[in-house]
Amino acid sequence: MTGTLYGVGVGPGDPDLLTIKAVKALYRVPVVAYPAPEGGESLARAIAAPHIPTGKTEIVIETPMVAGKFPADDVYNRYAQEISGHLNAGRDVAILCEGDPFLYGSFMYLFLRLAEEFPTEVIPGVSSLGACAAAAGAPLVSRNQVLTVVPATIDEDELERRLADTEAAAVMKVGRHLAKVRRVLDRLGRTGRAHYVERATMAGEYVSLLTDAPDTAPYFSMILVRSPEDVEPAA
Amino acid sequence: MTGTLYGVGVGPGDPDLLTIKAVKALYRVPVVAYPAPEGGESLARAIAAPHIPTGKTEIVIETPMVAGKFPADDVYNRYAQEISGHLNAGRDVAILCEGDPFLYGSFMYLFLRLAEEFPTEVIPGVSSLGACAAAAGAPLVSRNQVLTVVPATIDEDELERRLADTEAAAVMKVGRHLAKVRRVLDRLGRTGRAHYVERATMAGEYVSLLTDAPDTAPYFSMILVRSPEDVEPAA
Repeated sequence: MTGTLYGVGVGPGDPDLLTIKAVKALYRVPVVAYPAPEGGESLARAIAAPHIPTGKTEIVIETPMVAGKFPADDVYNRYAQEISGHLNAGRDVAILCEGDPFLYGSFMYLFLRLAEEFPTEVIPGVSSLGACAAAAGAPLVSRNQVLTVVPATIDEDELERRLADTEAAAVMKVGRHLAKVRRVLDRLGRTGRAHYVERATMAGEYVSLLTDAPDTAPYFSMILVRSPEDVEPAA
Repeated sequence: MTGTLYGVGVGPGDPDLLTIKAVKALYRVPVVAYPAPEGGESLARAIAAPHIPTGKTEIVIETPMVAGKFPADDVYNRYAQEISGHLNAGRDVAILCEGDPFLYGSFMYLFLRLAEEFPTEVIPGVSSLGACAAAAGAPLVSRNQVLTVVPATIDEDELERRLADTEAAAVMKVGRHLAKVRRVLDRLGRTGRAHYVERATMAGEYVSLLTDAPDTAPYFSMILVRSPEDVEPAA
């Protein structure tokens, strides 16, 4: 009997935003794996920490993080092999993932390498989209509106085209692109309905209207743009 | 001292997909409110049922549901008034919301009526986006990709334009628009990377490739369209 691979969404940051299902899985599995920047702390593990019982075998998936680059293929091949060892020996493995595993989660790299060979279950988590909107105290999207999720990293013209063509938007990975996103939203006249959020639901959470945002933003920050007007039910 | 209003995301359907924070709030508050179609069962309450202790005051927010229409203004005014009564008397009130309150949640209507007057906290929940992707066993979106969330209700040309212009997409509220969405994805050559999901994480969950989907779909079904290729880390 091989073990089961779990992709566990641990949510946006507050340990109380883990689901009951995630907590049960962490209680049950003997092996817990999580990504961490080379030599740094794992955010996913820090989020889940209160729910990881002692005595688990832990695997740190160390990924060299160069700004704007994604970790190389061979890193994931190596960890897939290590995890396979446990699964082949019949041990269940939970891989922690910030937010939701299949919405911009790094879990997909190991999923693509392991899910064909081993029974796999993905436990969805609270994504940063809903968490940032909750932190901002601003409903993001409703009814039949179109929502566009777009990275701030794309070209300015392309960003403007996309933000002009959607009712609600979430602009991710703002970081050094903050000034660009601001210019675009100013040109579109949408700054007044935009919020800036960093570290949603975590210690050090910072939320403001975009007009009051700081001049520099960390990589993991988000700008939420609501539709031009709140949609109200028909009178 | 007035009470606090909580908007509580109860997730996509599996009661184990409530967050710990949601469960704690339900334990604490004396009043629980939830939407239900006129004369019908409340899905939000059914999802949260195992976590609602006995002895709560319950408010059923009955909304007449006409296909394609949204409940009228006066319905929400009336319930806002009833809930205000509890808050003014110092009683905390939790309003349950399927999925996440600020991502297409009906909570926003009461939020817009009550949040200025009363302390309000929104507890984000697992949205159907991540839950459907998990059920499909298919990573939806990763890295710097653009994700478009679009209702199936829009015009066919407009749907085609939007689906042609995004890397990943979630098409919601498929229902009687299934044939239209299929035609559009066929024309775009994207059917092969599309999944059909209904009742994700609930009893009666149904998942298939879009090519194998049934001919009729319920209103709360979703089609997920992945990017043309899995994104792999650089070699």
